This record gives sequence, C-alpha cells and structure tokens, in this order.
Amino acid sequence: MNYDRTFNFSAGPAMMPEAVLEEIRDEMMNYRGSGMCVMEMSHRSAVYQQIIDEAEQDLRDLMGIPDNYKVLFIQGGATLQFSMIPMNLMKNGKAVYIETGAWSKKAIAEAKKVGEVTVISSKDKNYTYIPDCSDLDIPEDADYVYICENETIHGTTWQTLPNTKGKILVADQSSMFLSKPCNVSDYGLIYAGVQKNVGPAGMVVVIIREDLIRDDLDNLPVYLQYKTHADAGSMYNTPNCWAIYCCGKVFKYLKKLGGLDAVNQMNIDKAKILYDFLDESKMFSGTVDKDVRSLMNVPFVTASKELDAEVVAATKKAGFDNLKGHKSVGGLRASIYNAMPKEGVEALVAFLKKFEAEYK
Amino acid sequence: MNYDRTFNFSAGPAMMPEAVLEEIRDEMMNYRGSGMCVMEMSHRSAVYQQIIDEAEQDLRDLMGIPDNYKVLFIQGGATLQFSMIPMNLMKNGKAVYIETGAWSKKAIAEAKKVGEVTVISSKDKNYTYIPDCSDLDIPEDADYVYICENETIHGTTWQTLPNTKGKILVADQSSMFLSKPCNVSDYGLIYAGVQKNVGPAGMVVVIIREDLIRDDLDNLPVYLQYKTHADAGSMYNTPNCWAIYCCGKVFKYLKKLGGLDAVNQMNIDKAKILYDFLDESKMFSGTVDKDVRSLMNVPFVTASKELDAEVVAATKKAGFDNLKGHKSVGGLRASIYNAMPKEGVEALVAFLKKFEAEYK
Repeated sequence: MNYDRTFNFSAGPAMMPEAVLEEIRDEMMNYRGSGMCVMEMSHRSAVYQQIIDEAEQDLRDLMGIPDNYKVLFIQGGATLQFSMIPMNLMKNGKAVYIETGAWSKKAIAEAKKVGEVTVISSKDKNYTYIPDCSDLDIPEDADYVYICENETIHGTTWQTLPNTKGKILVADQSSMFLSKPCNVSDYGLIYAGVQKNVGPAGMVVVIIREDLIRDDLDNLPVYLQYKTHADAGSMYNTPNCWAIYCCGKVFKYLKKLGGLDAVNQMNIDKAKILYDFLDESKMFSGTVDKDVRSLMNVPFVTASKELDAEVVAATKKAGFDNLKGHKSVGGLRASIYNAMPKEGVEALVAFLKKFEAEYK
Repeated sequence: MNYDRTFNFSAGPAMMPEAVLEEIRDEMMNYRGSGMCVMEMSHRSAVYQQIIDEAEQDLRDLMGIPDNYKVLFIQGGATLQFSMIPMNLMKNGKAVYIETGAWSKKAIAEAKKVGEVTVISSKDKNYTYIPDCSDLDIPEDADYVYICENETIHGTTWQTLPNTKGKILVADQSSMFLSKPCNVSDYGLIYAGVQKNVGPAGMVVVIIREDLIRDDLDNLPVYLQYKTHADAGSMYNTPNCWAIYCCGKVFKYLKKLGGLDAVNQMNIDKAKILYDFLDESKMFSGTVDKDVRSLMNVPFVTASKELDAEVVAATKKAGFDNLKGHKSVGGLRASIYNAMPKEGVEALVAFLKKFEAEYK
C-alpha cells in the first residue's frame, strides 16, 4: 500500500520497517484477542511476559548470544550507560577509553566522574580515523577497554576490534546494532540505544557477561545496578514495555530477512551505492578515511558551507528528510540504517548526481 | 466501533482512552503528512518539536502550572526518581519521609543511600491509614518532606497535604496524576510515572520549582541532574518520544472532557459505585480507613484467602482483567484510573453482587 512515506535519513530516531509498523497499527485496539493494546498491559501479565520473552529469545537467536550473557532492557539511553558502565565495572577505578568521536567523548566525560581514564584519541584529525589499537599500552589493573563501535556523527566504524590484551571489551553499538553479525564472546558488555537501528527511543539493550554483574554495589542507586535488572528479567520496575514490543517485532523481521548475514550484505550493497558516487563525484566527498567508513552513517561535504546548505535545502524540497550534517562535521549526513530501503539510497544518489550535473 | 476490549483493572500499565488509541493507530504509517511514524522522527525535527511543545503546554493548562516551574520528561520510572530526588535536593543531607505504603518505603530505601532520613510511618497497621501530619517534628535543616500522595498497592490517598512548616514538599503522584485538580504551588517537586493514569510505561513527568534546580552538581552523572533535562527542554539526549506523543494526546483528551474538575467528578462518581457496594456487602470489605480511601486503587478482601482466589478466578472467567490483589495486601484490587469507563465499574459491581448472592 502507498502511505506516501518519505525517505528519512535521520541519524535517530530513524526509519522502521513498514511491515512492522503495519502490524503494530493492526494490533493497536486489541492485541491478539487480549482485549487491550500493548501499552495498556500489566507488565506482570502472562500476555506481556510472552512478548518480552520472545523479544529476548529472538535477539539471542539473531546475535547468537551465549548462555552466560544476560540481555537487559534499560531506560535512560546511552547517556545513562555512560555512567552505569564505570559505576558497575570499575573495580579498580581505572579504564581505557578510545575516543573516536562525539559519543565516546561523552562517555569519557562521565567515566571521569567515577575513576581514572586513559584516553587514546583521534581528535587530532577531527575523528576522521580510528587509532591503531593493535598494541595498546593498557595499565595492568585497568578494568576494561571502551569503544564506540560506530560513531553516528563522525561516520567511522571499527573494522578490527582493539587488542585488549585480556581486558574486558565494552562497546557502544547504538548506531550499528544488528547491522551485521557480531561475535558476542569478544565482548564483556555490549549496549545499544535502540532508536537508531531497531525501534522507538527510550530504551537501551545491554548484553553483559554474567560474571561482570556485581552483587557488592548495594550503595549504588538500585536502578543503576546491572544486578537489579538482571535478577528481575528487566522488570524490577516497569520497563519501556512498548519499546520492547516494537523491537521484538523488528527482531522477528530481521530473522525473516535471513538473519544478520543477510542484513549485512544488504547494508554493504546499499552503502556501496552512495560511497561509489561520492568517490566519483567532483562536487561531493566523504569526510573520513576510506578504510573506516561506516555502513550506517555517511557524512559528506562540498567545497563550501554555502553549497552544503544549498544541497540540504534542495534535498528537503525534493522530499528527502534529515540530510543536514551534524554541526561538528558540517555538510550532509545520510544515515542509512537497516530499515532504509535500497530504493531510498538509489533515489538520493540519482538526485545528487542530477544536482551536480545541473550545477553551474 | 466494537473492538471487543476488556475492562482492564490493572494497577499499571493500565487502560488508555479508546479515542486516543484510535488516533494513534490512524497516524501510525504517516503522521499528518510528515511521511513518517512518530517513532521514526528525529527528536531534533520541527515536526517533533511541535509535539513535545504542545504536550508540555497542554499539561501546563490542565494543571495550571506556574511559570516558575519546569516540566521535565525523564526516563527510568519512579525508581530512578527515588534516587534523583535526594541526589538533587538534599543540600543538607537530611529529609523527612512519610511512609504510607510500598512505594514510599522504596523511596526511603534509596534516600538513605544519599543522606539522613527521618521516617514517620503507618506500617504498624499495614499502611491502612495515613499518619497525622498536621504538626510534624521536622528537623530545622531538613531539605524537604516527601510523600507518596496515592499508594497504588495499599489504596490510600492523602486528603490534606502534610504541614511541612515551610519546608519543600515532594510528592510522588504516579497513581493519581491528573485524577483531580492540583495546586502546584503547594509543592517543590511533583513527579509521576505516566503508565498508570496517562500513557505508556517508560517515562516520568517531573514538575519542579526552578529555584530547586541546582547548578553545583557537576560530579553527578549528567543524566541524574535535573539541570541537564531542564536546560535542554527534556532533550539533552533522545527522550521517550513515543510516550511524550501518547501522553500529549491524553492531555488534549482530558482538556476536552472539561479539565481536571470534570475528571475529578467522574472519578468520585465511579469510585462511589464500588465503595458503596463494598460497604453494603457481607462478603467483601475494603482494607483501609474510609477517610483515606483512594479513588484510583481499591483493594478489598473476603473473609478467607481461598474465597479471595475463587473470586479472582471468577472475575477473570467473566472477562474482567487484573483484579488479583498485590501479595502484600492480598484479596482483590480494582484500579479504576481516569480511562476506566463508568460502565466497567458498574459491570464489576453487578458481577460481584451476583457472585455474593449466589454463593452458598
């Protein structure tokens, strides 16, 4: 059916699969004979328990999450995780953070309130590359190494995980979550705000190795202890039930697409269309090193701010949405998450090509 | 239209107005020509800014919130507020908490992690009354007095606010929010999880007097500072955009009903039907002092646990949902929030009457 939907290149919240939205719409007044909308359900009811159980199981299936990892659904966004991670994982009060852009920078600021932070950074070139982390100088008693695996604003992604020399790896996967296969055992903790690649804003998924969940943190606010959420199946207090429901539908949708291998191939194909164009174009160019280009967030610029602004205005007029780049990078940014159809990228490239050809 | 919806007496999440759900359903695939669902919208877009602005303004209109109060939308539920309140408001590290049930008890446990707490309690009679707070012994340097204005589990509500002797009053209004008029100026801070009387779980509304927002708390996690949310119009990070959208619709719906005076009268009328029955019944009785009965949560019991269970099973079979009482009170509990239609309460009372009459 034609709903006259736009190609929405927002960095997040972002597009969701149309088929998922249709299902949600159709279950709005009465979810599968329950007599109520999911928003109205007691989180302690059997009907809701099945929704959250299936969401967790489908995510476990998709990512191949080992049994010794807990899956937690927590509110407060990545921003609250910036604090929860050091508060829960800094036993020795020390960690190594790799600063590759705006989001790891914010995480570092919060971690510094909790303990001592060693920073390795690519700030010197405005985060256009990822530092060589094959032989890091990691303090003996560091509790973990932290990365932002895909920088939404700067448009870089890690190709090879850092060599943590046996230390725990913690990764913010917000803007690449479920975009490709992931070997969960490589990490101690993975987390992702779901509003970029999965569902509605207001929830993070935390995947944490069980032995990292401490029970000696009684003095921390109860909400900030991973133990609280792990012990109660993410229902110590009322979770974001709606987000769990919507994300659960997306998990099923991705399984039906063929799982993360298939999704990855789609994302590679989609991004290639845009990057190939940028590499050929005389007017537009990508802003980061080619070997660390993100498949999800593609920042690009023209030679001048004025022309950047002109292109953004033209795309908007042509019905493409949210292509303005973040102020710290400038230019344009196309976020092409899982749910962005290939046709959307093709249409954008066709438009940019035409714009360039007709520009005097 | 008949959607075959059930009368859902859940303590929360709970019923929402059918007309609101219909609107949400109809806007699912393309919100008012934006080309996208609200779940897909950048929170930095003009179309979303209008949604959050209207939600705030409609809430201000409904409650008559003075200009020197900020309205904040924060994730993490009441549970996170249990910690944020003492972390932000305890300047002298001291507060008075009135313990009237399960929820104030939990708030006290979190406050004790932050400072010194004086507790006045009705625990001696399993929280069936509200302590006399007309002449409290409040420490000179106490930062605030805290109440849970309606105890969801125990079914009591404050009729007269405590005499705080000039100290700031902090109130958890979760299970009575927008159920009746509220003189906001009587409080320093009001907060409410929205999943009982307004919308979907995953958000609290915090109404805080501006002068209580401190700017000397840089060492606190950034998410836990009220200043963070106040300075950024609740959008320092991505908020629960969907909950704000749904709650905004409910605010408009309540305004159309005639505002909180009209809503209050409806709630009084509705609760009277149930309480009158309980007072007449030989089989059922309310569990709390009549003068502090909640209009929202009505716990009641029979003479035995076996009979309680039998009634719960019978109501369920008859199509009423979530009437089982909380384990700490037992028996049954009917939560009859704003969105529970009068017909629902009438039908329940008719059923209970019949059950009693036919019981041998």
